[in-house]
Amino acid sequence: WCSERGPSDLLHACPCPGGDRMLGGHSSSSTDPCFSSQLKTTTTAAISKDFTEDRIWLNGREEDVGQPRLQACLREIRRLARKRRSTGDGDALPLSLGYKVHVASVNNFPTAAGLASSAAGYACLAYTLARVYGVEGDLSEVARRGSGSACRSLYGGFVEWQMGEQADGKDSIARQIAPEWHWPQLRVLILVVSRWARSRNGRTVAVRSPTLQFRAESIVPERMKEMTRCIQEQDFQAFAQLTMKDSNQFHATCLDTFPPISYLNDTSRRIIQLVHRFNAHHGQTKVAYTFDAGPNAVIFTLEDTVAEFVAAVRHSFPPAANGDKFLKGLQVAPVLLSDELKTSLATEPSPGGVQYIIATQVGPGPQVLDDPHHHLLGPDGLPQRDL
Amino acid sequence: WCSERGPSDLLHACPCPGGDRMLGGHSSSSTDPCFSSQLKTTTTAAISKDFTEDRIWLNGREEDVGQPRLQACLREIRRLARKRRSTGDGDALPLSLGYKVHVASVNNFPTAAGLASSAAGYACLAYTLARVYGVEGDLSEVARRGSGSACRSLYGGFVEWQMGEQADGKDSIARQIAPEWHWPQLRVLILVVSRWARSRNGRTVAVRSPTLQFRAESIVPERMKEMTRCIQEQDFQAFAQLTMKDSNQFHATCLDTFPPISYLNDTSRRIIQLVHRFNAHHGQTKVAYTFDAGPNAVIFTLEDTVAEFVAAVRHSFPPAANGDKFLKGLQVAPVLLSDELKTSLATEPSPGGVQYIIATQVGPGPQVLDDPHHHLLGPDGLPQRDL
Repeated sequence: WCSERGPSDLLHACPCPGGDRMLGGHSSSSTDPCFSSQLKTTTTAAISKDFTEDRIWLNGREEDVGQPRLQACLREIRRLARKRRSTGDGDALPLSLGYKVHVASVNNFPTAAGLASSAAGYACLAYTLARVYGVEGDLSEVARRGSGSACRSLYGGFVEWQMGEQADGKDSIARQIAPEWHWPQLRVLILVVSRWARSRNGRTVAVRSPTLQFRAESIVPERMKEMTRCIQEQDFQAFAQLTMKDSNQFHATCLDTFPPISYLNDTSRRIIQLVHRFNAHHGQTKVAYTFDAGPNAVIFTLEDTVAEFVAAVRHSFPPAANGDKFLKGLQVAPVLLSDELKTSLATEPSPGGVQYIIATQVGPGPQVLDDPHHHLLGPDGLPQRDL
Repeated sequence: WCSERGPSDLLHACPCPGGDRMLGGHSSSSTDPCFSSQLKTTTTAAISKDFTEDRIWLNGREEDVGQPRLQACLREIRRLARKRRSTGDGDALPLSLGYKVHVASVNNFPTAAGLASSAAGYACLAYTLARVYGVEGDLSEVARRGSGSACRSLYGGFVEWQMGEQADGKDSIARQIAPEWHWPQLRVLILVVSRWARSRNGRTVAVRSPTLQFRAESIVPERMKEMTRCIQEQDFQAFAQLTMKDSNQFHATCLDTFPPISYLNDTSRRIIQLVHRFNAHHGQTKVAYTFDAGPNAVIFTLEDTVAEFVAAVRHSFPPAANGDKFLKGLQVAPVLLSDELKTSLATEPSPGGVQYIIATQVGPGPQVLDDPHHHLLGPDGLPQRDL
């Protein structure tokens, strides 16, 4: 796969973004075998003797290739490639480790908004670099140099990120609990609240939360077991309640750091209220919310509830201008809300509070893109104009 | 004190509201011996053979006297009065326990907004009823029938509400840590964010927070000791940081209930950010925030910092219309912010986010009002028109 012919050997992948919390299944990409999936990262990597330096373009903009996390990933993949060749396995693909690499990566969903774009990005990067450098086997180590949770995004379906016990973190790995086709009725709605990156104070964590250790030691392990059971048995009620409780507790521990971190805003809280009232109206837990490191809500529900809940969101957050573009991704049939439900929701509408909804479902792991039209780098090794 | 002459025996009191959390000192009323204090509850109680039923007026509106908490207070005070008379102590004041009572009470600060109006109200009620019925001694039991934290508002200055260990809660009492004149430089600013009562979902607590018990058992006891030390030694830096951390953890545990409770809103969070940036600019903790069961902020600072911080609040939350009425209570000299500080605050102004500020300081406990002009009930035992 080394290229004497210039950068014609390009590789691409699009993993499902992994959530920053309990289960990668919290976030998702389409199981649609075509690559118009709703939440994906696409990455192209190329090596060539003609390249004079490593370079990277993220979402069309060239970024500093010298940033530590990126360098750590490159070092690790090259180390594995070197190791592989020294053990002879690599002979099949004569590889010039000296070659510089060009990388281009794009997300088709909001970045740095608590939708695990970095997890998806680094998983995709590791997967793509591995193909370019002819590295096989577990890539967790490579991906985690970029983002801890990226190891989870290397798998499709429902993925658990095991805490592990070793000090060096070598046993902190991802494990697939169920494949993407395990729970076909499950749907995911991303309620995009804000196009902004996470709030400034989200970046500075001074003192760790006193309740965080308690949560990690006394609560999470039990919840992981229960969550795994919920998924394996497709127990939506329990899955939904545990998802909401864990999201709330995660944000509680953030608020307990000093200075406090608040990822949720008033719109996030209105969504939480909406979900609880929607469920109360139906007398059962039909919808669940979870929030990661941002105000955007990830909603879990089942196929038979999607249409009604989307209508409830439209009712509580009337689309500003883009009424037609309000819903992206999977098709959702428009339905009318019953007056009873409208009364139960009892919310004063917040126009534009939710910018748009991405309707999707649990998706697969990284996929190789063979069609050159999907390549982000052109024959010259530079980003394609039209991307 | 019993009245054969109709309701001429009126008693009044104005305690300092107690915070719903660690220390009553978190909230305050003026030490000003006159009764124009900034945060106070004024209550008038009268008994008369002419009254045909118990009645109560809160903030000018007659309320259902049958509500359980109120009835519990009345039962308890009458029980103590009966006991007192049976033991003979009461002979000094022949008392007709059969007489009905009229009560009028007003707060001069927002009610049901997390400013401990109920604690102040019930403490004031207990204190006033005690005078009417000639009951002396500790009134904690009476006040706590109305509101647990009301026992704390029976004292002035800095008051600790001890958790206690007995199942019957008899040892869950308030203790004054320091009198109101102990720390004269300490100032309190109430930033009134919202004129609304606490959010709807604040009323329904389904499942208790898993982290709440951990907090109560493992964190609060140590913090109480430390807070007491901070106050006794007037260690503002430590006092301020502990106050903020405990406020954040309290709200974290609220968020960890199910459904979650969020008392803070986006303006509350902007205030939190403002305080942290203000402190960071000065390189020391000069200001602290604490929030109770509502979005309004209670700010602690020292005399020499009040003016600059008030200017910072004006800068971040430009007064809507009422520029002149923006600051109530203690006088605060207007000052100009340095450009350096404005840069450090780096906040996009939120006009009207803070409705007004009440500037006050730690205040005394219940006081008897002798001046008839302050009575809330007229000679006919009904609320005075002008109140």
